[in-house]
Amino acid sequence: MARLSPDVLRLYLVTDQSLTRGRGLAEVVAAAVQGGVSCVQLREKHLGTREFLAQALKLKELLAPHHVPLVINDRLDIALACGADGVHLGQSDLSLEEARKLLPPEVFIGWSVESMDDVLHSAALPVDYLGVSPVFDTPTKTDTKRAWGLEGLAGVRAATALPLVAIGGIHAGNARRVLCAGADGLAVVSALCGADDPRAAAERLRSLCDEVLTPRK
Amino acid sequence: MARLSPDVLRLYLVTDQSLTRGRGLAEVVAAAVQGGVSCVQLREKHLGTREFLAQALKLKELLAPHHVPLVINDRLDIALACGADGVHLGQSDLSLEEARKLLPPEVFIGWSVESMDDVLHSAALPVDYLGVSPVFDTPTKTDTKRAWGLEGLAGVRAATALPLVAIGGIHAGNARRVLCAGADGLAVVSALCGADDPRAAAERLRSLCDEVLTPRK
Repeated sequence: MARLSPDVLRLYLVTDQSLTRGRGLAEVVAAAVQGGVSCVQLREKHLGTREFLAQALKLKELLAPHHVPLVINDRLDIALACGADGVHLGQSDLSLEEARKLLPPEVFIGWSVESMDDVLHSAALPVDYLGVSPVFDTPTKTDTKRAWGLEGLAGVRAATALPLVAIGGIHAGNARRVLCAGADGLAVVSALCGADDPRAAAERLRSLCDEVLTPRK
Repeated sequence: MARLSPDVLRLYLVTDQSLTRGRGLAEVVAAAVQGGVSCVQLREKHLGTREFLAQALKLKELLAPHHVPLVINDRLDIALACGADGVHLGQSDLSLEEARKLLPPEVFIGWSVESMDDVLHSAALPVDYLGVSPVFDTPTKTDTKRAWGLEGLAGVRAATALPLVAIGGIHAGNARRVLCAGADGLAVVSALCGADDPRAAAERLRSLCDEVLTPRK
């Protein structure tokens, strides 16, 4: 595929149905997109395949008119069946080479890096962006290695030219520092899925992104 | 694909790692294949994608020299990545139409039917065999509808020309009746995965199949 524009990653919503407090996921995503989310990753570890696909198709329909890409976490079968724009893989998912072989060339692939070894390996791998995971410790994911921290993120920035999206414990209070440390985008779960007003929360985060990433003349 | 030979389904092992009592799944499968298993379905609902694929590749390597097809339950991403021979879908998995679109034409597709409606619909669907599930009540699966019973199985046999594999509560003590009711093959989980001697258990079931399905002159 053509090089992925880092702008797509600017405000990257990762879904977690369990955080939406009874609201439908589509409702929360729609509000967040109104507020400026530029990319949505559907992450579902507990749904059956048919329900997962139904959710993916619903989000695809919702996002397409806004030209907001839909990324599927882990499951290439779902990504292929719903015509996703991208796939995000972690260290316990298919390898990048396996995924690249199975996906159409226009589908981009992101990969969570948890160590500097991963980052250095990524140079030789078919990957379009890196997820720096987790930047801060977070209750959302408990199966990851220790947090990168801002210095770690800056080290990743120095080690690769790939677009970087930072994830883990990011909120309006630390977003600016994450961007200044070198992230091309902020991936957020609870700061949007769990927000009382997902649209307002997205607006606030998006304007922070635009301020830092589009320098004023 | 060319019509699937019902002979492939004659003795159809469905894996359940939790029943192998500490033995490796590959070890149990290898023994069962020595005993006459003609098809193996890898069913894993709890493994991560990478581990699932590793298991699939291990079984593929083990089965290929014996020309025993490997079928993957539910997960088309795993099936595509490991080069499976078939895919088995249930009522909460991808639809047959979606699966057929994503799979190479030589990969066969089985489908679990839980009602006569499913059986009647199957005539218009891209499916290569039906799993009559469950024939008898079983502790292995608890999310299925009520058992077909032998009369139900005979009714399915009368309603479709597709190859039929019966699953659910089958063992050497009832296998003959299941075959006489119209099944082209026996799918077994605990009777092989949980057997003290999976090879001997497979030999016994396979000879019952061959007796009933290959009538003596």
